[in-house]
Amino acid sequence: MRTNRLEAFSDGVIAIIITIMVLEIKVPHGEGIETLLPLIPVVLSYILSFVYLGIYWNNHHHMLHATQKVTGAILWANLHLLFWLSLVPFATGWMGENHFASAPSALYGAVLLMSAIAYWILQQLIIASQGPDSILKKAVGGDWKGKLSPVLYAVAIPLAFWRHWISMSLYVVVALIWLIPDRRIENALRSSDT
Amino acid sequence: MRTNRLEAFSDGVIAIIITIMVLEIKVPHGEGIETLLPLIPVVLSYILSFVYLGIYWNNHHHMLHATQKVTGAILWANLHLLFWLSLVPFATGWMGENHFASAPSALYGAVLLMSAIAYWILQQLIIASQGPDSILKKAVGGDWKGKLSPVLYAVAIPLAFWRHWISMSLYVVVALIWLIPDRRIENALRSSDT
Amino acid sequence: MRTNRLEAFSDGVIAIIITIMVLEIKVPHGEGIETLLPLIPVVLSYILSFVYLGIYWNNHHHMLHATQKVTGAILWANLHLLFWLSLVPFATGWMGENHFASAPSALYGAVLLMSAIAYWILQQLIIASQGPDSILKKAVGGDWKGKLSPVLYAVAIPLAFWRHWISMSLYVVVALIWLIPDRRIENALRSSDT
Amino acid sequence: MRTNRLEAFSDGVIAIIITIMVLEIKVPHGEGIETLLPLIPVVLSYILSFVYLGIYWNNHHHMLHATQKVTGAILWANLHLLFWLSLVPFATGWMGENHFASAPSALYGAVLLMSAIAYWILQQLIIASQGPDSILKKAVGGDWKGKLSPVLYAVAIPLAFWRHWISMSLYVVVALIWLIPDRRIENALRSSDT
Repeated sequence: MRTNRLEAFSDGVIAIIITIMVLEIKVPHGEGIETLLPLIPVVLSYILSFVYLGIYWNNHHHMLHATQKVTGAILWANLHLLFWLSLVPFATGWMGENHFASAPSALYGAVLLMSAIAYWILQQLIIASQGPDSILKKAVGGDWKGKLSPVLYAVAIPLAFWRHWISMSLYVVVALIWLIPDRRIENALRSSDT
Repeated sequence: MRTNRLEAFSDGVIAIIITIMVLEIKVPHGEGIETLLPLIPVVLSYILSFVYLGIYWNNHHHMLHATQKVTGAILWANLHLLFWLSLVPFATGWMGENHFASAPSALYGAVLLMSAIAYWILQQLIIASQGPDSILKKAVGGDWKGKLSPVLYAVAIPLAFWRHWISMSLYVVVALIWLIPDRRIENALRSSDT
Repeated sequence: MRTNRLEAFSDGVIAIIITIMVLEIKVPHGEGIETLLPLIPVVLSYILSFVYLGIYWNNHHHMLHATQKVTGAILWANLHLLFWLSLVPFATGWMGENHFASAPSALYGAVLLMSAIAYWILQQLIIASQGPDSILKKAVGGDWKGKLSPVLYAVAIPLAFWRHWISMSLYVVVALIWLIPDRRIENALRSSDT
Repeated sequence: MRTNRLEAFSDGVIAIIITIMVLEIKVPHGEGIETLLPLIPVVLSYILSFVYLGIYWNNHHHMLHATQKVTGAILWANLHLLFWLSLVPFATGWMGENHFASAPSALYGAVLLMSAIAYWILQQLIIASQGPDSILKKAVGGDWKGKLSPVLYAVAIPLAFWRHWISMSLYVVVALIWLIPDRRIENALRSSDT
């Protein structure tokens, strides 16, 4: 399997996930502007998840760009990642409809945690398939973002049952950490060219 | 990141937005032709939004065609545009179900305004990335359409609370202004070839 | 605009239309096999529309394959076709839920008629853009299928109010006429190669 | 028609099927963690179907990779396969909502059976189009997986009315058989290169 097929399929699935998520913002039945008020937490959740899926799309693209061949294990690790990402709209909808209540906020963190683990597994399999001179390994480097994020999610999940705004803040913080585009892989690719 | 990846992802998202919008036209429960009557404003809103998304798809394509490299800032400006476009089905559904009432018509204008601003930001970032000899800058030229549209939206939003048919007319007028395919970029590309 | 962009976007929209149509087959609330019985007309409508969209996808592909350049008019004629096709899920759902009643069957025919007209307009614009030696014109030839189909739809629409099974039969007949893959364009392309 | 068009369209449809399936996991109205309990069978069904669609996507890709030309018959056999796959979300939703009751489990097996038959027809048509030296024929070889799967489905369907957990186990067994990535075609392609 060529990398671009896997990329096109993943892009398609992420594009659909990001778009059907908007279906959770149900059209209100009244016509007054005050009927929009109950939608504010739903829209805020949507924005957060939109940013997360944008980050995944972006980093996933960079990662596959540094991948030459796709093994069976990589293919299934990729589907495993898409599986967890496909649960984001559900977790987002539940969290938004319940105004960031404890259990929904914890579930949201759990889906993010599993997605991060799935991403990490995929990354390790690609690095393993590339052997000792792995471009991706060099590109990822210390990978402090990839190591810190699951820790923050794991902290945020139990905290959601104590003070749910703390876990929400942690999800926003992780998003901000990643929002800075990941130039590591681009740099490694560039230096491997020269 | 290559331009064609960004284009394929954006096309995918716009194709999904344009298609799920039709889900707002709910199948009526009766079998008589009169059960379609309440759907007329819903269908009219759908047509307007379909045309707007067609215009965005078309112009977005031309813009990316005049873009060589994609920076991190361009990538996020593009996701920002897709975010606002993804709210079009919601605004369309709310406006259609409430027969173009004031608040829904104003929200529709607000989503169009934010999309226009997001498009403008994306355009400026691409021009900035191309330096002084920017093909896109030459192509866009005076950009009177791009400057007039947000002004008309901004006028239409408060007017929706006074006479909502005026704001609806303004949305139609802006669509008609853009419906004439944008040959500016094509011309600039052609002249830069010769 | 290159033809392949238009093709990819159209393919994406048709793929989404064909797939969201299945959402009209609502999961029944009982667990007995008899709860599936009311779904039979819904599934039959789905099959018919699936075949129609398959035919459009196939012929549209062949047509664009014989197209070299995409003008603004062709682009909008293509969006016009996609607009009518996007209404197929609605018409299908209404017809299926009401067991092929008169008004829904007539509306279904109207959507098919408008799609056929939109397809014809697109075809004429491509032929016109190719000038006197148009490959597509040669390929389409007498185009008896393209001429007969709208006539049969136009006959079927009023008949739906008299005997709705006659119009249903006509829709099935037109589908069968087209189901035979359109080798005309392929042949013309082949002979233009030699 | 080139193979890659057929592949892109099929990928698009499968990506949409796999993603809209998640819409069957309805957001619960309560905010307590116990409101998730009734969703467990829905999520389990979703996982099973996700794996099945992943298997189809993977094998379908390998099959088309060993296909050079697409005839009209192949095109329609492919649409026929996509038709049955498009019913997977419905069968999954019905089975999950009714906690793997008899009739829904039988229907699920029937959809899997018809998909397997549709896949087999497509495979035979491609082999036939390739003539006596068919790469795909060599790659598929004895095809014990392809022969065993429909038999297991056919056994599972009636068993669903006696002990539905037996048929569920059979569906899981078939998925596990296929989950091992299909290296047969890859091997045949490799040996035909050397």
